[in-house]
Amino acid sequence: MTATIRLQGVLSPVLTPFKADYSPDADRFIRHCRWLLDQEVGLAIFGTNSEANSMSVAEKRGLFDALLEAGVPPARLMPGTGCCALSDSIELTKRAVQAGVGGCLMLPPFYYKGVSDEGLYRNFATIIDAVADARLRVYLYHIPPVSSTPISRALVARLLKSYPGIVAGMKDSSGDWKNTAAMLEEFQPQGFDVFVGSENFLLANLRGGGVGCITATGNVNPSAIVRLYRQWQQADADAQQARLDATRATFAKFALIPAMKAAIAWKSGNEAWCTVRPPLVELNAEQQQALQGALQQVGFEMPKAAALA
Amino acid sequence: MTATIRLQGVLSPVLTPFKADYSPDADRFIRHCRWLLDQEVGLAIFGTNSEANSMSVAEKRGLFDALLEAGVPPARLMPGTGCCALSDSIELTKRAVQAGVGGCLMLPPFYYKGVSDEGLYRNFATIIDAVADARLRVYLYHIPPVSSTPISRALVARLLKSYPGIVAGMKDSSGDWKNTAAMLEEFQPQGFDVFVGSENFLLANLRGGGVGCITATGNVNPSAIVRLYRQWQQADADAQQARLDATRATFAKFALIPAMKAAIAWKSGNEAWCTVRPPLVELNAEQQQALQGALQQVGFEMPKAAALA
Repeated sequence: MTATIRLQGVLSPVLTPFKADYSPDADRFIRHCRWLLDQEVGLAIFGTNSEANSMSVAEKRGLFDALLEAGVPPARLMPGTGCCALSDSIELTKRAVQAGVGGCLMLPPFYYKGVSDEGLYRNFATIIDAVADARLRVYLYHIPPVSSTPISRALVARLLKSYPGIVAGMKDSSGDWKNTAAMLEEFQPQGFDVFVGSENFLLANLRGGGVGCITATGNVNPSAIVRLYRQWQQADADAQQARLDATRATFAKFALIPAMKAAIAWKSGNEAWCTVRPPLVELNAEQQQALQGALQQVGFEMPKAAALA
Repeated sequence: MTATIRLQGVLSPVLTPFKADYSPDADRFIRHCRWLLDQEVGLAIFGTNSEANSMSVAEKRGLFDALLEAGVPPARLMPGTGCCALSDSIELTKRAVQAGVGGCLMLPPFYYKGVSDEGLYRNFATIIDAVADARLRVYLYHIPPVSSTPISRALVARLLKSYPGIVAGMKDSSGDWKNTAAMLEEFQPQGFDVFVGSENFLLANLRGGGVGCITATGNVNPSAIVRLYRQWQQADADAQQARLDATRATFAKFALIPAMKAAIAWKSGNEAWCTVRPPLVELNAEQQQALQGALQQVGFEMPKAAALA
């Protein structure tokens, strides 16, 4: 086992900018990644909020290679590499590990419903065995509201036993604090790092021994989330958490991905940011107005957003 | 619009044979396709029961090209070409149409849940516009128990209006006869061909004006299903339907895909047929014994199954 520094803190599933013809815009993607890194947010590229499953493996590889060529440090990356197709997961994970990423965030295969823990175990084990690289760090992605395919505690225990050190943690996007608390209690002491999937649970997770959050709204509200991560033991931590929650709730009144893209379009002055790939739909003009009004009410700011244009 | 012969009758989502290392076995795939064609079953390759979403686009293209090189007539093919990624759907659909397939069976993108009809419309419209070929025949794949993404009647109406002739029909795997009846009543008179997703509804569908079924168990019980399709106006049609239902119910006591593969392994004498890709799991020895006993009780036969070995 090589000694690598474990990812922790605040990461964001990086929004993927598309051109009008729906092709990925690598230049804007690189600018957005740099803007996030400048604010000390790690890069969970190819997540749910990245519309990653709306892109082909070739498109993801293209964006990944463009990031590396632009000099983004691979150790700050936690790409999503779990796909429905076993072969796609192996290809993406292998490429990511060879490049030296900090970790891989892995969805379970999500087409078939009601699959067994045995089947999910075989999926992850086959990928890990095929990648066959001691540098691999797997973060299991538990997001049953979208994947419909939960990662059970029994599955985590079995994978941890078979692949200690390789199976490194979880992103818990269940929205169910009881589940996060159980993961923290049972697995965090074994070095299994628990990230929550929303800053709503950031303070609770840090108090419970977790390592951070991987959160959609890190794309638009990075500094304030990072501040709470650094200052969670200070007296005003609950007040900071409440302010984060208010901003998050404002975005969550709308479809989250289109709303975050609309906010970046607004603050950067580049309308192209509004574009989402089908089956998502961008906010219409009326919704954009409503979002802007609501964000102004909670004092929302995006410093240096012009760099994202 | 070119005058093409519309697909109808009995099609099967062709099971994909894998080798022990989970790679697709093109030779066995071709033999299975020929065996189905000999029994007048059309080839809905890359369906749910084909484990298609467990394969990469490259693996699907490889199997598709191997079939064409083996001389399988493309007009008998209805490949599944709808993926989560818009770009994958365009690539697979374009390739299929250029090869002259009878139609393309298209899942909606199924990762995000609760997406709008507008978003699904844009998905299909963007694919059709990108393929830009008058020979394209799109069959919409309605399978909410697995995809969690229904194809509504409003969406069908809108697509039919925008793309008459191109939007050719549906596979209804809802298992909800009320939905099928509504599709038959509203859209079949406009030349929108309704296939049911299980032979359980074959007789009802034909009596209601539908064109056939695309059914998993066509892989193992093709002749009897085709017989009912040909003889549905004869006096014993209901008795034939009851026998089909009994065989189907026997398979459905087990996980369907592993059970069908286990039956082919048994009847062909080639154990390799049992292999499924994760996240599915093959039947264990005890389950295989139970399946064989149950199938013998309903008089199940697979003529010329040795050809599948």
